Amino acid sequence: MASLKRTGKVVCIGRNYAFSSDHIAELNSARPKQPFFFQKPTSSILLPGDGPVLRPKGVDLHYEVELALILGKRVRDLNPQDEQAALDAIDSYALSIDMTARNVQNEAKKKGLPWDISKGFDTFLPLSGPISKWAIPDPHNIELYLTVNGKVQQQDSTQLMLFRIPRILGDISKVMTLEPGDIVLTGTPKGVGPVVPGDVMRAGIRVNGEEVEEAKLEVN
Amino acid sequence: MASLKRTGKVVCIGRNYAFSSDHIAELNSARPKQPFFFQKPTSSILLPGDGPVLRPKGVDLHYEVELALILGKRVRDLNPQDEQAALDAIDSYALSIDMTARNVQNEAKKKGLPWDISKGFDTFLPLSGPISKWAIPDPHNIELYLTVNGKVQQQDSTQLMLFRIPRILGDISKVMTLEPGDIVLTGTPKGVGPVVPGDVMRAGIRVNGEEVEEAKLEVN
Ligand SMILES: [Mg+2]
Ligand SMILES: [Mg+2]
Ligand SMILES: [Mg+2]
Repeated sequence: MASLKRTGKVVCIGRNYAFSSDHIAELNSARPKQPFFFQKPTSSILLPGDGPVLRPKGVDLHYEVELALILGKRVRDLNPQDEQAALDAIDSYALSIDMTARNVQNEAKKKGLPWDISKGFDTFLPLSGPISKWAIPDPHNIELYLTVNGKVQQQDSTQLMLFRIPRILGDISKVMTLEPGDIVLTGTPKGVGPVVPGDVMRAGIRVNGEEVEEAKLEVN
Repeated sequence: MASLKRTGKVVCIGRNYAFSSDHIAELNSARPKQPFFFQKPTSSILLPGDGPVLRPKGVDLHYEVELALILGKRVRDLNPQDEQAALDAIDSYALSIDMTARNVQNEAKKKGLPWDISKGFDTFLPLSGPISKWAIPDPHNIELYLTVNGKVQQQDSTQLMLFRIPRILGDISKVMTLEPGDIVLTGTPKGVGPVVPGDVMRAGIRVNGEEVEEAKLEVN
């Protein structure tokens, strides 16, 4: 399995979940024409046991639980129709939280400035350890969840992804060659919200209702 | 000297040059309050001899010649007043061209979307080889130039930087820890413009009117 120490870049998809399966049907005409994406710096990665998420002064800090793909192959211009090629390019998975300085991001959006500061502070990318592909037979049919102080805030199936993994890898790799060790975050389901110092986030993955042990993530 | 193969991340400053020294004086009241920055993926690096810049379909491709810093130390929360610490953190320099899909960037700005696609295509970061610090005794007093098909398009002193290197490294490292091998692009002087396939860009650095041999960069 890939070591997270080999990470070259982290590419993240924005707005990639419907609110519900009804919403998916609704969106079919109106959904974004293509996925858009941004980078988080490798310096933002927080590995298990590496301590709490830091909250920079004046920052309105939000969680976004996401399924992360760890690439095992070089991928360039992947055919978005080729589901097998997409799955073959994945070495393993991880659970991730795309921590976001929401007020900084909103300011950046308003001014047309890059998102990098809002997404890129040190510790803004808590990751579980690598999860083997055996534990996740179908990445488009697992449940992601995140609780804050024991209260469920996010809990949805990856079936609600607007753009599925082959399309995501296709679109990114038309722009940027993906290398082994690169990480791709696939977007977050509804329920994102704020955390303050002292809050405990717990996140995980369920496959057919069963907890995936390697996916368990607890961060202060 | 640092090898460019060790690059972890590439962080770039936006809008960092005055048009002239008069303009600097004018700007002193009105200039941006702080530098903003974005990332280019390491996959966009084009090393000397690695071939032409690719122009993706439908892209309005612009050059931006910039002085690049190659970090030699881990830098976190650098004091922007500490010029010596900033210079000590630099292992070596490089000349770079921050290739930009201008129409894609303008669309992203309008929609409040990330800049990563417009800045991040493969080959969008031509770099010279590393330039030793001996060749650049004062990075705030060198001339950057870029010609297209022999015609000078950019040619200005780094004295026109709005935010100097200690401030740049201070601001970035307050957000993201910089690691040895990371690259920082320091912004581009006036004169940016389009190139089309077949155009030849030549860029370089002059110190006291003398060409720095290692800085010479030629890209198709
Ligand atoms: Mg960005
Ligand atoms: Mg996200
Ligand atoms: Mg630039």
